[in-house]
Amino acid sequence: MKLLIKNAIILTVNQHNEVLENADIALEDGRIQAIGKVPENFQADKVIDATDQIALPGLVNAHTHIPMSLFRNYADDLPFWPWLMEKIKPAEDHLNAEHVYWGAKLGIIELIQSGVSCFSDMYFYMDEVATVVKESGIRACLSGVLLEVDDLGPTFMKAAIDFHDSWHGKADGRIKAFFGPHSMYLCGPEYLRETTEEALKRKTGIHIHLSESRQEVADSLEKYGKSPVQHLADLGMFECRTAAAHCVHVSTEDIELLEKHKVSVLNNPTSNMKLANGFAPIHAMLKKGINVALGTDGSASNNNVNLFEEMHLAALVNKAVTEDAESVPAQQVLRMATINGAKALGLENEIGSLEVGKRADLILLDATKPHYFPRHNPVSSIVYSAQAADVSTVLVNGKVLMENYELKTMDVAETMREAERMAFDLVNRATL
Amino acid sequence: MKLLIKNAIILTVNQHNEVLENADIALEDGRIQAIGKVPENFQADKVIDATDQIALPGLVNAHTHIPMSLFRNYADDLPFWPWLMEKIKPAEDHLNAEHVYWGAKLGIIELIQSGVSCFSDMYFYMDEVATVVKESGIRACLSGVLLEVDDLGPTFMKAAIDFHDSWHGKADGRIKAFFGPHSMYLCGPEYLRETTEEALKRKTGIHIHLSESRQEVADSLEKYGKSPVQHLADLGMFECRTAAAHCVHVSTEDIELLEKHKVSVLNNPTSNMKLANGFAPIHAMLKKGINVALGTDGSASNNNVNLFEEMHLAALVNKAVTEDAESVPAQQVLRMATINGAKALGLENEIGSLEVGKRADLILLDATKPHYFPRHNPVSSIVYSAQAADVSTVLVNGKVLMENYELKTMDVAETMREAERMAFDLVNRATL
Repeated sequence: MKLLIKNAIILTVNQHNEVLENADIALEDGRIQAIGKVPENFQADKVIDATDQIALPGLVNAHTHIPMSLFRNYADDLPFWPWLMEKIKPAEDHLNAEHVYWGAKLGIIELIQSGVSCFSDMYFYMDEVATVVKESGIRACLSGVLLEVDDLGPTFMKAAIDFHDSWHGKADGRIKAFFGPHSMYLCGPEYLRETTEEALKRKTGIHIHLSESRQEVADSLEKYGKSPVQHLADLGMFECRTAAAHCVHVSTEDIELLEKHKVSVLNNPTSNMKLANGFAPIHAMLKKGINVALGTDGSASNNNVNLFEEMHLAALVNKAVTEDAESVPAQQVLRMATINGAKALGLENEIGSLEVGKRADLILLDATKPHYFPRHNPVSSIVYSAQAADVSTVLVNGKVLMENYELKTMDVAETMREAERMAFDLVNRATL
Repeated sequence: MKLLIKNAIILTVNQHNEVLENADIALEDGRIQAIGKVPENFQADKVIDATDQIALPGLVNAHTHIPMSLFRNYADDLPFWPWLMEKIKPAEDHLNAEHVYWGAKLGIIELIQSGVSCFSDMYFYMDEVATVVKESGIRACLSGVLLEVDDLGPTFMKAAIDFHDSWHGKADGRIKAFFGPHSMYLCGPEYLRETTEEALKRKTGIHIHLSESRQEVADSLEKYGKSPVQHLADLGMFECRTAAAHCVHVSTEDIELLEKHKVSVLNNPTSNMKLANGFAPIHAMLKKGINVALGTDGSASNNNVNLFEEMHLAALVNKAVTEDAESVPAQQVLRMATINGAKALGLENEIGSLEVGKRADLILLDATKPHYFPRHNPVSSIVYSAQAADVSTVLVNGKVLMENYELKTMDVAETMREAERMAFDLVNRATL
């Protein structure tokens, strides 16, 4: 299949952050064959006219729990503990595979509609999420969660290993499997060591929550005499490619450790603010050279998976916190949402920028709407003016998943209906 | 004209924050005649089926400079001073009435498309803004700006008085005129006293920037030995209904003064963050009983006039700053964006909630999109999940300005083209 996208404004997000106007992209066998000027003899099977549209790499949502779409708008304006223990956990205790299947489906529809071509997930029943990834055509890095609660540690370990070995590299290579130890407070040191070993053995990565709340840090200092970051470093986890979500409460020493061990930080501004955890010092991490990617977290603490909102927030929050308007400019935020996400998942040679040889994961935004005018600066318009609803077209691996706002691989009406049925069923069970 | 809206989920934002499901609204002669259950003998000229739509009061954007849409994405990631003096002011120095007309038109299209039925503006060439308000059918409280620069104080004073006397109450009562002294740093004490007198004489209000930056407060302390809030209080300005934009850098004493004098605070979270001014202590003001409304500020420092983004931020920012997830919950944010905005403009008996006898200023959101499912809580969905692009229908004074995403009173394509031409013309003049 040869596809030609014509006349776009292209934000390449390559190392020079090149912006091309009136430019074309040629795609063949799922990869970018040419960009800018396409050879005249390129015989396309399909042509997409992208006049007045902005083309950019598909966004990477680097931290989410996609089936938690079931809990959207279910438990808001609550402190972390009652939110988790009185609302979310009682419902999750009744989760089954069918709930997760439909929750994942609803969440993945939302991801595609808002321009995400690749996401990194951690949750229960990960086979179901993988099944929806396979069906939908999206790309994902999936981590079966590992927890040491109720003596279930070994069960989760076996499930995570099985999940990796069944799914890693599957769905035309669109699925990558990481290991997902939940956190240093729900997994003991031996369990984290064992998880690291299993990941290293398989040459894959680890996806973990890290230093999300003040409480986590205080407990770690009391229990281990060191910060959560230092604790994981000492356990040897960072010998593995590690993608650490949150890192809100980190010291200067923690930031140095993260940099030294090339840990990627997954920043989730909405979730951190909504659960009142605070502001991650992203500006300091970026200055230090840490790879910072963006995520939405789950819809229970957001309450959507709209990465445009996270881009907007990442730019704004850091300016306000540092009282420096030049901090974290638009172009840097765009990199966080694309190539930095790819790096966090070890996919930087495949996706995250529009360059010859890379996978054809790209999106088009309809820049003919009033909030794109006057057209002074397309990069600013993406970070400061755009809405997720402006995403008109999404391609993954050269396959069209959405064209002119129409989803090609998923039944939206059926999914909304079934996911709602599943959610109400869960809530009913939890409150019986 | 009798209009019937059927089967909506209605967020009334009345004093009990009532939510009605499967409810109807009857409108006649621009006012709400019935809500909830409509008398069977109501003979509508037009029926709007709002099944699965959420109806709420039209949003009030309480602080903006609408013609500044011309500078959208023109000067980003810059500190306040170079932003203003090297980019914005050199362009504004070349402003003429035609620029402002098209800038206002672009901005007002965006307001309607994003669910704003009433806005409060302060800018130059306010006659042009009023003309577009008249043509478009939107409601507005307009303030001709008053500045004491380059000996132009008296000229601005005369223009503001003329503007008030020509336009107050015009356009079927949709236009209200306030006086808009820019700030205590661009207007001297005598000038502010004179402005207050003119406003009091006309029984109207004042719209002013107040305590936006640290610099403003430091300069005020040095020059007058008191804070900007205390300075205005001592000048007697607050005898007038005053709507004060920003109030980022306010002390406990300032907050007490604002409360004592019933000053409304217009919170602009995006602008305050983007220009690195910081976070206004909204939670403390709300706790104190101050009327806090929401605004976008101008598109030069935002870069849009999307009040859904401001609702989202108002909820999130205050939770993070106070580390209290219960701070500024969704329902309170919805009040800030509606009835509190109405109060700030002295319009609380006319608009800001959906109640019998009030003006028929209301919007419908299409809640059939995936990010509204499962439907656990419609108020949370507006504040945490919605996008401005979900607004399908907008009525002001009972007149349909947008129906099913189609604008009825304005030419979008012509406006985008002309506004862009005007903006490029300005920038060319500024950089010659």
